[in-house]
Amino acid sequence: MAPDGTSYAIPGEVESRSEFEAIAAAAEAHRARGGQVVVVQGLGFVGSAVCAAVASATGEHGEPLYFVIGVDLPTVGAYWKVAKLRAGEPTVISPDDELATVTRDAACRTRTLTATSCEDAYDLGDVILVDIHLDVTGISDADLSAMWVDLTGFEAAMRTIGRRMRPDALVMVETTVPVGTCETVVLPILREERARRGLDGDVLLAHAYERVMPGPNYLKSIRAYWRTFAGVDAASAARAKEFLSTIIKTEQTPLWQAAQPTSSELAKLLENSYRATTIAFAHEWTLLAEKIGVNLFDVVDSIRVRKGTHDNMRYPGLGVGGYCLTKDSLLAQWGASHLLGADTQLVMTLNALQVNAAMPDHTTELALEMAGGDLSGVLVAVCGVSYIADVADTRSSPSARLIDGLRAQGADVLIHDPWVREWTERPDLNIVSDLSDALRDVDGVILAVPHSDYVGLTPRQLLQLIEPGTFVVDAQNLVDDEKAAQLHAAGLRLTGVGKGHWRRRDYQHVP
Amino acid sequence: MAPDGTSYAIPGEVESRSEFEAIAAAAEAHRARGGQVVVVQGLGFVGSAVCAAVASATGEHGEPLYFVIGVDLPTVGAYWKVAKLRAGEPTVISPDDELATVTRDAACRTRTLTATSCEDAYDLGDVILVDIHLDVTGISDADLSAMWVDLTGFEAAMRTIGRRMRPDALVMVETTVPVGTCETVVLPILREERARRGLDGDVLLAHAYERVMPGPNYLKSIRAYWRTFAGVDAASAARAKEFLSTIIKTEQTPLWQAAQPTSSELAKLLENSYRATTIAFAHEWTLLAEKIGVNLFDVVDSIRVRKGTHDNMRYPGLGVGGYCLTKDSLLAQWGASHLLGADTQLVMTLNALQVNAAMPDHTTELALEMAGGDLSGVLVAVCGVSYIADVADTRSSPSARLIDGLRAQGADVLIHDPWVREWTERPDLNIVSDLSDALRDVDGVILAVPHSDYVGLTPRQLLQLIEPGTFVVDAQNLVDDEKAAQLHAAGLRLTGVGKGHWRRRDYQHVP
Repeated sequence: MAPDGTSYAIPGEVESRSEFEAIAAAAEAHRARGGQVVVVQGLGFVGSAVCAAVASATGEHGEPLYFVIGVDLPTVGAYWKVAKLRAGEPTVISPDDELATVTRDAACRTRTLTATSCEDAYDLGDVILVDIHLDVTGISDADLSAMWVDLTGFEAAMRTIGRRMRPDALVMVETTVPVGTCETVVLPILREERARRGLDGDVLLAHAYERVMPGPNYLKSIRAYWRTFAGVDAASAARAKEFLSTIIKTEQTPLWQAAQPTSSELAKLLENSYRATTIAFAHEWTLLAEKIGVNLFDVVDSIRVRKGTHDNMRYPGLGVGGYCLTKDSLLAQWGASHLLGADTQLVMTLNALQVNAAMPDHTTELALEMAGGDLSGVLVAVCGVSYIADVADTRSSPSARLIDGLRAQGADVLIHDPWVREWTERPDLNIVSDLSDALRDVDGVILAVPHSDYVGLTPRQLLQLIEPGTFVVDAQNLVDDEKAAQLHAAGLRLTGVGKGHWRRRDYQHVP
Repeated sequence: MAPDGTSYAIPGEVESRSEFEAIAAAAEAHRARGGQVVVVQGLGFVGSAVCAAVASATGEHGEPLYFVIGVDLPTVGAYWKVAKLRAGEPTVISPDDELATVTRDAACRTRTLTATSCEDAYDLGDVILVDIHLDVTGISDADLSAMWVDLTGFEAAMRTIGRRMRPDALVMVETTVPVGTCETVVLPILREERARRGLDGDVLLAHAYERVMPGPNYLKSIRAYWRTFAGVDAASAARAKEFLSTIIKTEQTPLWQAAQPTSSELAKLLENSYRATTIAFAHEWTLLAEKIGVNLFDVVDSIRVRKGTHDNMRYPGLGVGGYCLTKDSLLAQWGASHLLGADTQLVMTLNALQVNAAMPDHTTELALEMAGGDLSGVLVAVCGVSYIADVADTRSSPSARLIDGLRAQGADVLIHDPWVREWTERPDLNIVSDLSDALRDVDGVILAVPHSDYVGLTPRQLLQLIEPGTFVVDAQNLVDDEKAAQLHAAGLRLTGVGKGHWRRRDYQHVP
């Protein structure tokens, strides 16, 4: 059962094998024409888009370079991805029409993309891309010492590849992994499995981290974006470079070759940890700015004029979500400690993760304050549950913690989101699809995500949707001072994250 | 006695007054020609350069707009600045020739710049600029709770202004102050003193923070750089804007008007705290990278390709110095707590200050490691003691802590710096002026500051200066991998901050 409600039957052994025979024949035919076969392991948020990017890559004369076989498991949780991709549909709901078009085109017209749950596929790949996901368990705000990365599934996947791969295939790990994984986990496993098969020669292994961004440029974030990669040796690096150069517009965004996979792994984790830390930093100044009556958005804007040194300063907000920024720092700490034996602690970085995880509690406090210190029985509409604007992606959304916090205070919560139809992680929460239904007769409104649909609302439209007397907590700077003045005059009660100036008694001084 | 050794006699009351009569006459003559008089309070690193910038400002037809009177105290520690500036010399040693030229020109040719220690000067100003400095006391690494900002001197200076200022003069505070200072300290004092004088009407008061940068663009960092300002009311803001527009090239770098002085004060403190925090962040990843054998410079470079979001990521280094980054976060915390009564703690920000203060200890540890765990009696040359490259400015230099750390381990320390002749804060330390004298027969060399003189040294030159067997700790990425290979081959023993890859046994893998 896919998140959109379509259900697919997992094929039996015989059916699966006959299906696979057709795939193998098509792959061989492609190879006979001088093309290569690429197997993509894992068909989630990254793998599905990678399949489209690789299957649509063409050579000098427009000829398709690769025949792509997406592989995922024949399980209830995963098989629908295989079925969808084979039918020419991306496995993610995305506002990027290009992703849908390219996927359909590759699966149905050029027939350079298919998918299977049959692991025989690994026999066929000239290149095997690893895009399976890897979770961190045991994350709690209060104490991160229990966090753990269970590599069992990942190791099993690597073993499958080692057992089946062609001797000269390139294995390229795109998954964000604990630092040290390629050199201390993947390489030994592949070597061991190959030794069992009596294969001579070094395995070709590389790490190349993706920077896939959900949103309107989903596919572009693979094809036309910076890529860092590294091989375990010069031959691996050369193969990885050659392959990536055919997928990525390297004349615009050149490749960056790191010294070894550990460097490349570290780069990805550092990059996201940096972002997460600067967000946590902004949060503590948000709390200060609110206390001293300062509009922190204005202050940050005034500092961001310093291009190249300060223009990436983060703004106040609800919190941090998504799959990367909430966990990548832990992969660095865990890998350094448990794979590489380094006795070092990323104190500030991990503290930032904790600050970010708890950040939505501040918005709950603002709502509590607006409700006079008591939210019991108060009906609150939360507008926005995806983790960033204008996507349906709810992974680790900070709205989840906000909603839990409001409920813990006794509030009744309604939810609206223009993009999210099903909140797979939170089946307990119902989403009201019509905004006016969601906002009618509530006591409070929390603007939690800066979706374009909300940004575009005029004061007049807002006043048609929201009754006078209702409180509004703007967690995402959706209401500027001019709008605020109109809403205030019409009887709405306003507060906002980072909007310290709205708390000043001498607010009229603000231009 | 000035830092360059010149000594000046502090004038007596009578002498001072007759000197002042001449100044007053010149000021009145300038005013009679339609110009304004600007009094600059405090002639240190900022005030001296501000004097030059204002005194050289011209109108549409090239006419000098302002007659500038620099004021500092008639004390042993301050009077030399008055004397120097009056003689047409900047009070700071700077590589910016333009600063020297413009100062000389204004004092000696156009005669739009003079200086005095006589407080009657405040009677004359149409604009009074406050550029006195303000220190934080009680800073210790381990515990910041004892830190304090003693405003006594600052308040006295404001009281002097209030007692003497012309009724319609604009007072513009450029000093970096605790958040809330203009609105809760300066404004009440000026109002009180003016009320005593029976003056009607509101005082014109603004805050406009400077971003003066020592180095080759000293003067340009005032004239052609972004400025944020705010007035206590609309009239003050308008006057501040008018004045700043005549000094700053606002067509290139427009002014930013903040809502109130508290916002402007906060912006300065936040800006520097951000920089300090990102440096502390880089430090903890430096320690990790060294432990796991990764070249962090390369990793950071690979991430910095993401312009606008990640291109300001900081590199590994020795530590943080200067007057701003080491204390501005404390001014934010102190002002919020003690002037504005906010119960909020900048936990991450203050922790970053502590990390930065202790950062040079890591370089000491690398030296200790190179010396086999025992530095007693080991002779170490520290190359560079200014707080950034190519300036003579030693304020809060991280080299001080490095040297103290080496000595605490029993090392004997020699110091070299191509810019610093006198280390005023550390008269106990002698600087060897010739590099070959400094490096001859030492056991170890620490490259502590990336002065151009050091960056430009070829491996061949380095090998002429440093004996085989000597250890070298590169704290500032002065030795790239190619140089390192040559130095290593010639028998030098190398390590470096952030140079994890130099510790790998399989170093040959690095391209």
